[in-house]
Amino acid sequence: MPLDPLSVKFAALADPTRRAILARLALGETSVGELAKPFDISLPAVSKHLKVLEKAGLIARGRAAQWRPRRIEGDGLREVDAWLENYRRFWDQSLDRLDAYLQSVAHDADKTS
Amino acid sequence: MPLDPLSVKFAALADPTRRAILARLALGETSVGELAKPFDISLPAVSKHLKVLEKAGLIARGRAAQWRPRRIEGDGLREVDAWLENYRRFWDQSLDRLDAYLQSVAHDADKTS
Repeated sequence: MPLDPLSVKFAALADPTRRAILARLALGETSVGELAKPFDISLPAVSKHLKVLEKAGLIARGRAAQWRPRRIEGDGLREVDAWLENYRRFWDQSLDRLDAYLQSVAHDADKTS
Repeated sequence: MPLDPLSVKFAALADPTRRAILARLALGETSVGELAKPFDISLPAVSKHLKVLEKAGLIARGRAAQWRPRRIEGDGLREVDAWLENYRRFWDQSLDRLDAYLQSVAHDADKTS
């Protein structure tokens, strides 16, 4: 059974090297050779990671055919963000509770000072 | 080499059954038996998925020891969200561009009407 698109994206993100490649691409279009430089892995290994990211729709190839730069695919992570949106209230709630606690501490401090 | 925490989270999310379990838990604390019901998989298979989610810090065990309910771990996805934050501008930019385009279309329509 082929994986659904969202699973493919999450699986692609479950690798620190691939996330580091995305972080580099977030600075701008970059050639494969340039992308490989900071990593202690071979060019074919980098190409393999790029293929995984491309299949997941997280990166795309730029228009300059000669050096074939890769770039972030803007819409790629939007789907991940949309999924996450359903759960945001769980940590927003924790922040609310922390806020309420800090306010009660401040209130108590006011009373004792 | 053990995976970093963020990779463990992404790997845990790269499975539609595990995401469905999270969606069910988003409705409230749920026992393992109850969680297994909508899925055409065995109880041990569900337990295995729960273990993956728990190791990733995405769910936790509730306090009622007898039925050992699972619940969403509020902070679990916050780290994923924090990572995503660095990339949000990429799809926000696409929205900005769409907005600019729609405004220019509306502007042209004003001129020709």
